[in-house]
Amino acid sequence: MNVGMLGELFATISERGRRLIERRGEIGRRTRTPEAVIALAEDLLSHRGEASGTARASEILQAYAHFSAEERIVFFDALAGRFGVDPVRLKRAIDAYAAAPSEETAQELHLEGEPRRQELFRRLNLAPGGTQSLVDMRTHLLSTLKARPALEVVDRDLVHLFTSWFNRGFLVVKRIDWTTPAHILEKIIAYEAVHAIRDWDDLRRRLQPADRRCFAFFHPALADEPLIFVEVALTRDIPDAIGPLLAAERPPLAAREARTAVFYSISNCQTGLKGISFGHFLIKQVAEELKKDLPDLEIFVTLSPVPGFARWLKTERGDGAAWLGPEDAAALDALAADGMTADEDLRRAASPALMRAAARYFLEAKTAGGRPVDPVARFHLGNGARLERIDLFGDVSPKGLAESHGVMVNYLYDLERIEKNHEAYAETGFVAAAPAVRKALKKD
Amino acid sequence: MNVGMLGELFATISERGRRLIERRGEIGRRTRTPEAVIALAEDLLSHRGEASGTARASEILQAYAHFSAEERIVFFDALAGRFGVDPVRLKRAIDAYAAAPSEETAQELHLEGEPRRQELFRRLNLAPGGTQSLVDMRTHLLSTLKARPALEVVDRDLVHLFTSWFNRGFLVVKRIDWTTPAHILEKIIAYEAVHAIRDWDDLRRRLQPADRRCFAFFHPALADEPLIFVEVALTRDIPDAIGPLLAAERPPLAAREARTAVFYSISNCQTGLKGISFGHFLIKQVAEELKKDLPDLEIFVTLSPVPGFARWLKTERGDGAAWLGPEDAAALDALAADGMTADEDLRRAASPALMRAAARYFLEAKTAGGRPVDPVARFHLGNGARLERIDLFGDVSPKGLAESHGVMVNYLYDLERIEKNHEAYAETGFVAAAPAVRKALKKD
Amino acid sequence: MNVGMLGELFATISERGRRLIERRGEIGRRTRTPEAVIALAEDLLSHRGEASGTARASEILQAYAHFSAEERIVFFDALAGRFGVDPVRLKRAIDAYAAAPSEETAQELHLEGEPRRQELFRRLNLAPGGTQSLVDMRTHLLSTLKARPALEVVDRDLVHLFTSWFNRGFLVVKRIDWTTPAHILEKIIAYEAVHAIRDWDDLRRRLQPADRRCFAFFHPALADEPLIFVEVALTRDIPDAIGPLLAAERPPLAAREARTAVFYSISNCQTGLKGISFGHFLIKQVAEELKKDLPDLEIFVTLSPVPGFARWLKTERGDGAAWLGPEDAAALDALAADGMTADEDLRRAASPALMRAAARYFLEAKTAGGRPVDPVARFHLGNGARLERIDLFGDVSPKGLAESHGVMVNYLYDLERIEKNHEAYAETGFVAAAPAVRKALKKD
Amino acid sequence: MNVGMLGELFATISERGRRLIERRGEIGRRTRTPEAVIALAEDLLSHRGEASGTARASEILQAYAHFSAEERIVFFDALAGRFGVDPVRLKRAIDAYAAAPSEETAQELHLEGEPRRQELFRRLNLAPGGTQSLVDMRTHLLSTLKARPALEVVDRDLVHLFTSWFNRGFLVVKRIDWTTPAHILEKIIAYEAVHAIRDWDDLRRRLQPADRRCFAFFHPALADEPLIFVEVALTRDIPDAIGPLLAAERPPLAAREARTAVFYSISNCQTGLKGISFGHFLIKQVAEELKKDLPDLEIFVTLSPVPGFARWLKTERGDGAAWLGPEDAAALDALAADGMTADEDLRRAASPALMRAAARYFLEAKTAGGRPVDPVARFHLGNGARLERIDLFGDVSPKGLAESHGVMVNYLYDLERIEKNHEAYAETGFVAAAPAVRKALKKD
Repeated sequence: MNVGMLGELFATISERGRRLIERRGEIGRRTRTPEAVIALAEDLLSHRGEASGTARASEILQAYAHFSAEERIVFFDALAGRFGVDPVRLKRAIDAYAAAPSEETAQELHLEGEPRRQELFRRLNLAPGGTQSLVDMRTHLLSTLKARPALEVVDRDLVHLFTSWFNRGFLVVKRIDWTTPAHILEKIIAYEAVHAIRDWDDLRRRLQPADRRCFAFFHPALADEPLIFVEVALTRDIPDAIGPLLAAERPPLAAREARTAVFYSISNCQTGLKGISFGHFLIKQVAEELKKDLPDLEIFVTLSPVPGFARWLKTERGDGAAWLGPEDAAALDALAADGMTADEDLRRAASPALMRAAARYFLEAKTAGGRPVDPVARFHLGNGARLERIDLFGDVSPKGLAESHGVMVNYLYDLERIEKNHEAYAETGFVAAAPAVRKALKKD
Repeated sequence: MNVGMLGELFATISERGRRLIERRGEIGRRTRTPEAVIALAEDLLSHRGEASGTARASEILQAYAHFSAEERIVFFDALAGRFGVDPVRLKRAIDAYAAAPSEETAQELHLEGEPRRQELFRRLNLAPGGTQSLVDMRTHLLSTLKARPALEVVDRDLVHLFTSWFNRGFLVVKRIDWTTPAHILEKIIAYEAVHAIRDWDDLRRRLQPADRRCFAFFHPALADEPLIFVEVALTRDIPDAIGPLLAAERPPLAAREARTAVFYSISNCQTGLKGISFGHFLIKQVAEELKKDLPDLEIFVTLSPVPGFARWLKTERGDGAAWLGPEDAAALDALAADGMTADEDLRRAASPALMRAAARYFLEAKTAGGRPVDPVARFHLGNGARLERIDLFGDVSPKGLAESHGVMVNYLYDLERIEKNHEAYAETGFVAAAPAVRKALKKD
Repeated sequence: MNVGMLGELFATISERGRRLIERRGEIGRRTRTPEAVIALAEDLLSHRGEASGTARASEILQAYAHFSAEERIVFFDALAGRFGVDPVRLKRAIDAYAAAPSEETAQELHLEGEPRRQELFRRLNLAPGGTQSLVDMRTHLLSTLKARPALEVVDRDLVHLFTSWFNRGFLVVKRIDWTTPAHILEKIIAYEAVHAIRDWDDLRRRLQPADRRCFAFFHPALADEPLIFVEVALTRDIPDAIGPLLAAERPPLAAREARTAVFYSISNCQTGLKGISFGHFLIKQVAEELKKDLPDLEIFVTLSPVPGFARWLKTERGDGAAWLGPEDAAALDALAADGMTADEDLRRAASPALMRAAARYFLEAKTAGGRPVDPVARFHLGNGARLERIDLFGDVSPKGLAESHGVMVNYLYDLERIEKNHEAYAETGFVAAAPAVRKALKKD
Repeated sequence: MNVGMLGELFATISERGRRLIERRGEIGRRTRTPEAVIALAEDLLSHRGEASGTARASEILQAYAHFSAEERIVFFDALAGRFGVDPVRLKRAIDAYAAAPSEETAQELHLEGEPRRQELFRRLNLAPGGTQSLVDMRTHLLSTLKARPALEVVDRDLVHLFTSWFNRGFLVVKRIDWTTPAHILEKIIAYEAVHAIRDWDDLRRRLQPADRRCFAFFHPALADEPLIFVEVALTRDIPDAIGPLLAAERPPLAAREARTAVFYSISNCQTGLKGISFGHFLIKQVAEELKKDLPDLEIFVTLSPVPGFARWLKTERGDGAAWLGPEDAAALDALAADGMTADEDLRRAASPALMRAAARYFLEAKTAGGRPVDPVARFHLGNGARLERIDLFGDVSPKGLAESHGVMVNYLYDLERIEKNHEAYAETGFVAAAPAVRKALKKD
């Protein structure tokens, strides 16, 4: 291993970051109106801006950082309008293309069709900490889109830029463990979106035991900010419930005795990078790293929530749900209140109906676009995973019961079949599923 | 200083790089035809490609690495043609914009005007080492442009992409010194473009003494490759000749006694990044770092070659050069043969005319676009520097004499005035110059 | 900054450490009797041991790690006896010296007087993780010394060895902050000995604010274990109470506005290094680092507990305490129960007597060796600090009241006077104290 | 891999070192007489010294660094005399031991037998860069020992100290390759003692090819100084000549196809650490690391010079050498002049005799202590290696011919047998040798 040059590079980056943080106090004092900032932005795009871009970009981003929600909207409106496309130049490019269609005139057209804000964003990125500021800016923007759909053009440009900047080729996967710096770990606690981490002791239980792993993607320009992370449990068999995995007292398995790697939680960290997809890259790379380190691992599988199931089932039942026989419907009544019944017998009685409903939810319920209605299913199936097993009573926490009557599922990542599954899904919406899941559709 | 997380990030990147290098031997064996590679590229752009992009991108780039010059051209032609814009979709977008011009339809037009190869390049970057491979690909492309100007559309797309990826916000400046790893240093030797570094001892003389500095820009995705570097001498006064700076035996100045930082050599390292400008960022940042470290530094100046002067002067004289009186012309005759005369008296006699000619070269001789004809002058003036002094006999090496009759110049970076100078230059072509330089224009 | 070579060295060390930890599980199974371990130790000291010392040393230390308290004593007894000095060889060396006293014969005598266990310890250190194991071994040893004073010779040899190995020249001071790895930070929580750190939030309050610092000494062979650390508050003035420094809600001071650095907690971390003194080196080096970073700091001072004061005062009063007038004695009665009274008036009334008693405790109460009876005072005065101020009601926590009736003190580190103070203290026991402290001795 | 804390530790150490180097210029000016330095040393050992040891130690070492050879001797004499043992205290300890021999009184005797210079050395080590200065001091000392044998007591104390400080447990093995910093690599060039490295290109040929390795031991306190390094060639079979290994043009072997690791050069770097043995630790650890990385390696072997063979043979022949028949003697005459003959026939004719002589040199020729006369043989046999093969014409360089008539040998490190071989050698001087070598002893 050679840290050498890169170690130095990053010492440098990190020091730069630290100085930034230390200066934040001072920054706090200077403020400017949105109009003044818009004028600065025009300046940054001018010749003048070329010579002192870094300083000007910093001024703009610092001023922006103190904007109120109202001031931000003034700035966003300018981005959408004033910093949009130049219609005169665009018209000229359209005409040139029409007169002589070619790769050259098409390219000219492409370039003239680029709104000025894209170049503005690129120049703002010159500022130290610029990338983080732009990601934050998009976080703000996203929260206003509903109210101001005209700003969506701005959002689409940021997405375009971030897709290029956060290209997977620039991302670095890093193991997160108990030797990770505290300021990174506190972000793991904060960002965990699936099974909340209560405190540092809970965090330690997910990082330190021999049969636990955690990996995150980082980007050099956001070095102290994980982009996405996945938590992994190493087990003998495919688990059918989350409770035992998260239990406080638990004898850990020696890593070498594990045969299965369970991705039991995947969390995006940066709201401002919403829609820039890293998840499937992360899962595949982590699977490869684990396999390299622990060659006896045979199965890579998730233990996933089914967030929309209870709501869907309720709607279905409200609509009559012809597929649900009266007997099943009666059995399911027992789950109505809190998502589950404490009565063992009722629960046993409801199980076949619950299984059948879940299978239907995954295999037959479709969005307008012909995809499964469950968002988690769309993510994993879209990655090429297969719906491996439905786990009744997999998550009996209040949240699990409320959302999905306790149902969880395993998606299997079979590295040999990922590509085929993905292709079939992408082209026809075909859901790869284990025979047992298909069979559950049918009434016995 | 906290190396922590970033140190780890980069240990990871670097290890990845090392494994790549070690695998190159094996890679050498597999080959594919350009047609097969083009099919793979189509695949990479398809749904299938999404699921296993990294592997496919690697295959393509490995196969490309073994292409002959002819095979590359087949591939480039496909990039320019087959992977160009989709005319049907573009037409549709043009029509939509024409029907209802708005930011939304303009954006659609912009997106549909993007040639498919741009997305292809982004996906190729998924491969480990992808960025380097794409930079290399452009190196190859540049060498074919003259013969095949139709490929220029491909080049422009690569420039567009690289401008975004190599945004200054992602670059890291690093000091290069005698503790830098050897594989980086050998690149400094190889890439030095102004005053060649003869061997490791010569290199050491430029790095190790207390009054020498060297800084380079790096990009995390090309961690072992400097992008551009600048060599600096710390001196008391502004030097008027390069010889003493590069002398083998030289008592070094204590850094704290220096008042002047001399940028005496700036070299771009990556042919494939030609036209992506980093130089002015580097000079300004290095000036800032030096000032922070050595607060007594007062003057930031270059000692620069004048590569086109002798050729220009010869042409002028061939054309009559009315501005050159017969006396001056006669004095300059002495320099005709090898750029200089060994005769002290003749040299002294030629000096006023040489000075006048040089002043004219910088201040009056213009390109069609109204800029100075000297490329080095355009670079520094474009950065906002001022032409500070003309140094006759500044470079009496054979190359210096042949190119510029030994003339060198100093460009002054006055951080207070950079922006103003740049703006005037950018808008009107005005050349900032010290009064003495202006005065030299006139016959006394 | 150049991480280069050292970064690599330590990547290597750290990886070695990680592998060790991972192997601990397996280690757990192998056990050996003390007799078998003693035989292995003889082996390690023999010729055979030279060839495969590392493996043998590991075996011994692994077996030792599973010893029960009884088994350890068997091993310690062997260290004290069997692995002691060789009386025959020592006798011969004594005779040779007696016959011809010289540096050479004295040296021989010195060498022959070295017990065999010293060489054994040096060879045990060959094992990966050996240094930590030996430090742990001394921790065990210390706990048995009271019951088995004959083992003190073993302890003295370990002290001798550790004094050499942990020479200050091999220690590295590191700032501890919120970017420090979690496994180091949890040790800071665990080892804090003066003002307990309740949880991670409490820790963060001591590390993250702009006016807080923490530094620790590390040794390369124990890279994940701080040896000693000091917590620092940056303030305007010398503080007279610990409560405000540790308050949960507190507006932080900008570091540049601080004039005073307050060392408010110093904790040794390794029981097994008891008596190997690092504290005064740490304080002085931290003072230097702070001064370099924040040149406006003028005052370096502690805010220290007075652990033995209440006990001493009780004894004095029991003994009559002639120096305490009846009035004072009456006033102090109010503090008898819990160390303090809640009654404002009584408290005010007791203050002069408390101050007088404290001054006497520091200036007049002496150990048999003529040093102050307070151990914290001995440490700081021994370092050359001056007793600057007595702070009544400085620590009103239950512990503070019980131990010292709430009294705290400031010791001033005046870098100009440290040497003089130390010398006077070392030679005559003279206590450097501010005039106000001396004056408090006297009844007004 | 976690660089984290250790990376930081070492960034710190390294920065400390850099500051030291930068200050050396200033240091140059201050000088002191040996007498003044001796007074400072007394001071450092006094109470005063305890409080400001670091500063005082620095002063002493800086002054020492400017001593002339004569001044050093004055200082060394003081170390041997004035800073020797205290005879009064030693006498008292001897008497106490005589009166009541016990571990306690023996320990007291041991402690009182320690010369004061040992504590002085430990305190000098407080200075930044102290360890290096002390190692340098010993280098100077060694060069004076011949002329002043009374200084040997000082040397023995330094050896004692260094043996403890440079305990193998504190050493770190690091791979040296083409990404190693230049200032380390230039030391590899300088220190190579067996087969000289001519220049940077020659160095690169030993580091960069896929079938070459180099490893060194480092100590944290001398982070930029290798202590010892070994160069390794990966080959299919055991090589019988050095020439092909060092050839400039050579198709490298893929590392995975290697079955044999050849240690072809081992060099100590620090004269001041002479006699502190690291070599056998390094060979064994490198063998382990290589095996882990390349599990197909089966054979670990040296290709070693035979430095004393020609001289020994000449002496033998001068003495008659009864074991050498007249025919053999005649055949060997051909080698007399330059160590070898250019005549193929004569060379072939001499081979059997040369082989017999070499076998005798290794197996029969003994020092007074009953060990082989060849120092390289003593090193490897002492490590537990076996004399595997004699390679006639293994080194036909002028040096090789002159020293050993071109003979080289392979020592085999069979990890299973090292301990046994070492023990037999250590106890009886038994030379482990392959049957073919033994057989060569006998006349056919």
